[in-house]
Amino acid sequence: SNLSKIAKKPPGSSADASHEVSNRQKLFITDPISPGSIFFLPNGTKIFNKLIQFMKLQQQFKYGFKEVVTPLIYRKSLWEQSGHWDNYKEDMFRVEGHDTSKEEYGLKPMNCPGHCMVFKRFDRSYSELPLRLSDFSPLHRNEASGALSGLTRVRKFHQDDGHIFCTPDQVESEIAKCLKLVDMCYTKVFPLSPELANEVYTLELSTRPEHFIGDVKVWDYAETVLKNILNKFGKPWELNEADGAFYGPKIDIKVTDHTGKYHQVATIQLDFQLPERFDLKYKDRDNTYKRPIMIHRAVFGSVERFMAILIDSNHGKWPFWLNPRQAMIIPVNTKRQGQVDACKDLFLKLRGQGNENSTDPIPLNSFHFNADLDERPEPVGYRIKDALMKNYSYLIIIGDKEVETGRYAIRTREDRQLEHLTDDEIFNKFRELEKHYK
Amino acid sequence: SNLSKIAKKPPGSSADASHEVSNRQKLFITDPISPGSIFFLPNGTKIFNKLIQFMKLQQQFKYGFKEVVTPLIYRKSLWEQSGHWDNYKEDMFRVEGHDTSKEEYGLKPMNCPGHCMVFKRFDRSYSELPLRLSDFSPLHRNEASGALSGLTRVRKFHQDDGHIFCTPDQVESEIAKCLKLVDMCYTKVFPLSPELANEVYTLELSTRPEHFIGDVKVWDYAETVLKNILNKFGKPWELNEADGAFYGPKIDIKVTDHTGKYHQVATIQLDFQLPERFDLKYKDRDNTYKRPIMIHRAVFGSVERFMAILIDSNHGKWPFWLNPRQAMIIPVNTKRQGQVDACKDLFLKLRGQGNENSTDPIPLNSFHFNADLDERPEPVGYRIKDALMKNYSYLIIIGDKEVETGRYAIRTREDRQLEHLTDDEIFNKFRELEKHYK
Ligand SMILES: [Zn+2]
Ligand SMILES: [Zn+2]
Repeated sequence: SNLSKIAKKPPGSSADASHEVSNRQKLFITDPISPGSIFFLPNGTKIFNKLIQFMKLQQQFKYGFKEVVTPLIYRKSLWEQSGHWDNYKEDMFRVEGHDTSKEEYGLKPMNCPGHCMVFKRFDRSYSELPLRLSDFSPLHRNEASGALSGLTRVRKFHQDDGHIFCTPDQVESEIAKCLKLVDMCYTKVFPLSPELANEVYTLELSTRPEHFIGDVKVWDYAETVLKNILNKFGKPWELNEADGAFYGPKIDIKVTDHTGKYHQVATIQLDFQLPERFDLKYKDRDNTYKRPIMIHRAVFGSVERFMAILIDSNHGKWPFWLNPRQAMIIPVNTKRQGQVDACKDLFLKLRGQGNENSTDPIPLNSFHFNADLDERPEPVGYRIKDALMKNYSYLIIIGDKEVETGRYAIRTREDRQLEHLTDDEIFNKFRELEKHYK
Repeated sequence: SNLSKIAKKPPGSSADASHEVSNRQKLFITDPISPGSIFFLPNGTKIFNKLIQFMKLQQQFKYGFKEVVTPLIYRKSLWEQSGHWDNYKEDMFRVEGHDTSKEEYGLKPMNCPGHCMVFKRFDRSYSELPLRLSDFSPLHRNEASGALSGLTRVRKFHQDDGHIFCTPDQVESEIAKCLKLVDMCYTKVFPLSPELANEVYTLELSTRPEHFIGDVKVWDYAETVLKNILNKFGKPWELNEADGAFYGPKIDIKVTDHTGKYHQVATIQLDFQLPERFDLKYKDRDNTYKRPIMIHRAVFGSVERFMAILIDSNHGKWPFWLNPRQAMIIPVNTKRQGQVDACKDLFLKLRGQGNENSTDPIPLNSFHFNADLDERPEPVGYRIKDALMKNYSYLIIIGDKEVETGRYAIRTREDRQLEHLTDDEIFNKFRELEKHYK
């Protein structure tokens, strides 16, 4: 396989890198008051929200997912039915009220059983399938406290989670669609190692393990389907014999970063068990009830861990659209009121800042850039250097000449070359970058 | 006071109305597997997300809030420090791991202590104040199961929560800003009873209760500040003598719906206690450390309850921007391929549906309307009636003449009058409505 060309390194601890960048950019903190739960600070929240916004748009308007918001705590009986209480109990948090009833709940470690409840509630017809549900709920898993670290080993996290309920006939095309979204993400929007071109991510198929449930024939069929899909997809893939989940075979996707390290991100799992355990069924064309197949899939995997992978590869040099520090505006001479005023006007324009005294609301889907203004009484060279240190994507420098012409000097983080643009041109440039995830 | 003109009715049970509308529009379900937690179905999730998106934009780009994402479970010691373990224990859920450590956590019923942790982590300067944090975390309160009902009495809910840390000098202007946001919401964006004009919401000031903590002088000062603000604000307000929280006085905002029923929504509370309990401080201009004041505020209050209020007043006739059923596209004759094709093209255009085979991502901040297509082989009159029953905001009807001219017949839910618009004109019309929350 072509994969041998990549010097695979085991995933190293990216905790140091993300802590260093986080401290510098104020992205997140952790605290013993809630071990393994991230406090996202305003800058980290911006990145977190943008990643989720990107994924929701792709899922919903390109791949037919419907978003749901489901409960976080469920009675013990749900987890008994799903099998988690038997197989996953140690990793779950128990919840109970203080009142006398002492009802016992489990804090959800995954969304699947909740989505089965949504499927089951209505009389489902074949015409509703494939039914694709997505969910960005917070999930909790009781990782050992010694293993907790930064964004990578956490107890609370969010997945870009989705479950597809479909007929056996639909499995192939549904998984092909999942792979297309994975491919778009990792080659186009988040290329962690552009120089690797075709090999920025790898595919692995894990087949029937020693301990499994269900019918060997169904397993064989499903594995053949997955192999066909992978072969048609045309990228190299590897076989992990007997490494599937006990409920079905799966495809794991690992991205390779610029250092050659690989990270598990996306996963696509076939599941014959949960539909059985929850007695899910749909009415087929022939009016008989049949069992749907369930596909679990995530593209980022854990959004928190995906942020750690991004930080590990960019060291805080975020692409413009994700950067909580998109532009620093710098008046050359902070004593020149004309310069400072022009800077302030541009600052308000780029932030799309509304007037709190107007009763007009800020419009839906409007653009608001993370622009800052450095009018400290320090030499301009010092302030430019400081903005570069802080990883601003763009520096906009306004002196007398710029005020006079209305064309402001703008440069990127990487290139000293100055362009001169009007405020509208800057806004439109930024809008195009953000719109297209650049 | 002018308020006597409004025939105040006590808040009735809106559970029936919201269940009826929810069943018809598939907004949400509840289930004994998680009593008091809402399962938002895809249509309900759309409304829920839009409300939050609206509020985030106003808070962040008009009123200077910074969003954070904070943990859901905290060690018991946090709740002891905040006073919740003593005063609020019965309403909280306990959480613990299954492992031997048996660490004891509380599932958060409110965001305030988590925000205090964020404030406290950094050495804060007067120049950072007012610091305004917002948070849309799920909250859990263990309401008695007998009291649970629909969207109004729940155990899991989301607040449009915010905490302002400020100096005593800043209290007045900060609260005035909160009132401006409240006013914009309830008079401009969500007018529940337009005919009441100035009296769509009422303001109530609750003052020092019998049992209180802190210094009477500080209370007196704070109450005077609040009275001054209310008087300056110019709307009628009522005094609820001795009805404040034990930690500070508050302003409650109640909206009146079209039936005359009033509902508590927004609240603005001054708090001298939590900053004390968490020993919060900032470095002032004179280099001494001082105690900030904390303001708790929410405009919707519980997003779930606010949805119930909206449903109760609109009975499923959502304004366009919130409607999960914005437009139904209907070919006059479903056997005419030209009509069906034109309908499908319009459907894809209004949904902003991307091609799953293209590697171009769906752009950020793009518009995607909830358009549906009814090509069932039923008489056109039947399908029009059905779409009206389902509360679609617009009906777009395409016959041979429309296909020929490229101008489609469009009418509103309320008015039979047809307009003839091109696909671009329809898209732009919808975009303007949605942008401006119409
Ligand atoms: Zn799953
Ligand atoms: Zn609070």
